[in-house]
Amino acid sequence: MRLTTNAGILPNGFQASGISAKIKKSGKKDLALFISGAPCVASVQFSANRIQAAPLGICRRHLKAGSVRAIIANSGNANCMTGHQGVKDAEEMTALLANAFSLKKEEVLVASTGIIGKPLPMGKIRIAVRPLVLGLSAKGVSAAAGAILTTDTFAKEVCAKIHLGNKTVTVTGVAKGAGMIAPTLKSATMLAFIFTDARISKPVLDKALGLATDDSFNAITIDGCMSTNDMVIAMANGLAKNKTIKAGSAEERIFAQVLKDVCLALAKMIVRDAEGATKFIEINIRSAENDTQAKALAFSVANSNLFKCAMFGQDPNWGRIAAALGSVSSGLKWERLDISLNSRFVFRKGRPVACRNRHFLKDRNIRVDIDLHAGKAAGTVYTSDLSYGYVRINADYN
Amino acid sequence: MRLTTNAGILPNGFQASGISAKIKKSGKKDLALFISGAPCVASVQFSANRIQAAPLGICRRHLKAGSVRAIIANSGNANCMTGHQGVKDAEEMTALLANAFSLKKEEVLVASTGIIGKPLPMGKIRIAVRPLVLGLSAKGVSAAAGAILTTDTFAKEVCAKIHLGNKTVTVTGVAKGAGMIAPTLKSATMLAFIFTDARISKPVLDKALGLATDDSFNAITIDGCMSTNDMVIAMANGLAKNKTIKAGSAEERIFAQVLKDVCLALAKMIVRDAEGATKFIEINIRSAENDTQAKALAFSVANSNLFKCAMFGQDPNWGRIAAALGSVSSGLKWERLDISLNSRFVFRKGRPVACRNRHFLKDRNIRVDIDLHAGKAAGTVYTSDLSYGYVRINADYN
Repeated sequence: MRLTTNAGILPNGFQASGISAKIKKSGKKDLALFISGAPCVASVQFSANRIQAAPLGICRRHLKAGSVRAIIANSGNANCMTGHQGVKDAEEMTALLANAFSLKKEEVLVASTGIIGKPLPMGKIRIAVRPLVLGLSAKGVSAAAGAILTTDTFAKEVCAKIHLGNKTVTVTGVAKGAGMIAPTLKSATMLAFIFTDARISKPVLDKALGLATDDSFNAITIDGCMSTNDMVIAMANGLAKNKTIKAGSAEERIFAQVLKDVCLALAKMIVRDAEGATKFIEINIRSAENDTQAKALAFSVANSNLFKCAMFGQDPNWGRIAAALGSVSSGLKWERLDISLNSRFVFRKGRPVACRNRHFLKDRNIRVDIDLHAGKAAGTVYTSDLSYGYVRINADYN
Repeated sequence: MRLTTNAGILPNGFQASGISAKIKKSGKKDLALFISGAPCVASVQFSANRIQAAPLGICRRHLKAGSVRAIIANSGNANCMTGHQGVKDAEEMTALLANAFSLKKEEVLVASTGIIGKPLPMGKIRIAVRPLVLGLSAKGVSAAAGAILTTDTFAKEVCAKIHLGNKTVTVTGVAKGAGMIAPTLKSATMLAFIFTDARISKPVLDKALGLATDDSFNAITIDGCMSTNDMVIAMANGLAKNKTIKAGSAEERIFAQVLKDVCLALAKMIVRDAEGATKFIEINIRSAENDTQAKALAFSVANSNLFKCAMFGQDPNWGRIAAALGSVSSGLKWERLDISLNSRFVFRKGRPVACRNRHFLKDRNIRVDIDLHAGKAAGTVYTSDLSYGYVRINADYN
């Protein structure tokens, strides 16, 4: 199994389109459509933020109605905190698509990312539906992946093929990361859409997506801020004609792995494209007592502003890593603690190791290995550094 | 009751001294002594960080032995993660003082702030004890307050006088805030020492200090990072000869209030002197369901990097405040939510209020009022913005 990025490949039966509906003042692409020729089982992971944008509520309702055929998504406006009108607008977006293809509106999902608190420009979206539909193509995934971006600096698209029995199954994912800049109102939102032609039951897809999300999109943090619009959608149309993937089967394990690999590749691309990032940082907790402890400790380091500034400054500051670990309530024994940065020990068995130079932190990629010598669990979190660029982008200083 | 800052006044029977022991390369003052002529009841609040510097363990042990006479404190070295030697060094610091005054070492408390992971230069400290003791004076509080600073840009000293019966009771507090810069290893530490000549029982002092700390030092956040060395010490020597302050008395209420006022004044000075801060931000949650909810929501906003960058940029970004509120698991009803910045509504009854200009955010002081319209509880947290200066100081870029 090999992952290819930006290959422009969609699974059998899927088409996509991405155009400018002039929601963004820049004139960049801002309206995307993904559609399957056959009904799909669909699974969605929603933001845990208590304030949720209107599209999330519509998606929850539509998912209950059964199979799904399409996703319509816009950038430039998050349709969040837009009250009752926002709910009506999100619903109308699904209805516009449903009308164009004689579907039920419940077969269409909807996502938005961008400015919070401004009504969607529905006039522009209504006009744009026709060119959006006319633009559909089996090769349209790159255009669609471009149309969901906000301040991302590159499109994020990953494709993988696996063999199940004598059938080839394709999994293609697109995502957008953190960053939405506009005067006065801003938001950061992560969206990821995964498409596959695998034949799979909904419970098996739900389980696979939950596990994949835990180890990918739920294992990254840019600044610890939780968005109101985050959504991960997986759609499977069954056109690969493989034997339906069943719970407990070898096929389930293979499929779950490829889904996780695609999600992780997209999640890492999001971190690499984080606002102002100059470093891509992988934090591994090893020999922890349990998974919960491992992930809590990894996140505590990843979300420490002091640690993130040190990484920006290429400063092998194990003291800040230790202080972040200590701020978590856990049975940490620091006299056993090992910390290494890019395979160089900076702290071993509870004692600092002198480092003469910082050259080993010059690389864009930083790996932090923290060994607790306590148990058998492990956890990994990915993050970026905290740079002048992050402050500049988010202060909108003018 | 009036608070005076940097007045150089200590309560009856207290003396202080601050000198350079050459722990800091800069040659600035780095060794402080506070001593009472009479035994004191003492109360201490320790950092909740699981990794604790050596002095904290020594203080815990000495407090159990009974009354206290002195605090010896150094800056420039945190004596943290220094292993068994660190514990011996912290203990020796108390013994050096005890010998000079024929006290038991258990009557001396010790605190350190500065670099993590380097052994204390005990040779320098041993030599410095004599000049430190010779420098003692009833007017020495400013010198001592200066000797506990690290990257603080100003000394923090507050004094208040109250009348209990026909006696005047004095409460004097000194503190240092966040910031320790040195090559390779760094830490941020908060220390606060409160001295009073009030006659008070230990349980009543413990309770008053706990309440005062909750609403002051535990209600501030610079960057959400928890230090390994934080300590708040209160010492009361009884020389004001007031009737012993008893639980449930009017005197207890008066004393608790002045202790809280002194702590809050020191805590606010720490936030004003935060690394790179250009704003002093007060976040008030009103009409919350309970105190826990109020404080959790206030801290979620205060620790949001996106919010802090917006304040640096003088951007009335209610969307980020709302997203931070929503990231807390609470029964928040956002359709009732009001948010105002410096008395200007930016969000009212769940809807944004257009703001034509940002002039109201030009002031150094920002007040964020968030009304949940849910209950009768309230909570306040103080914080600073996230600026280029914060990144510069903490990246140690070179």
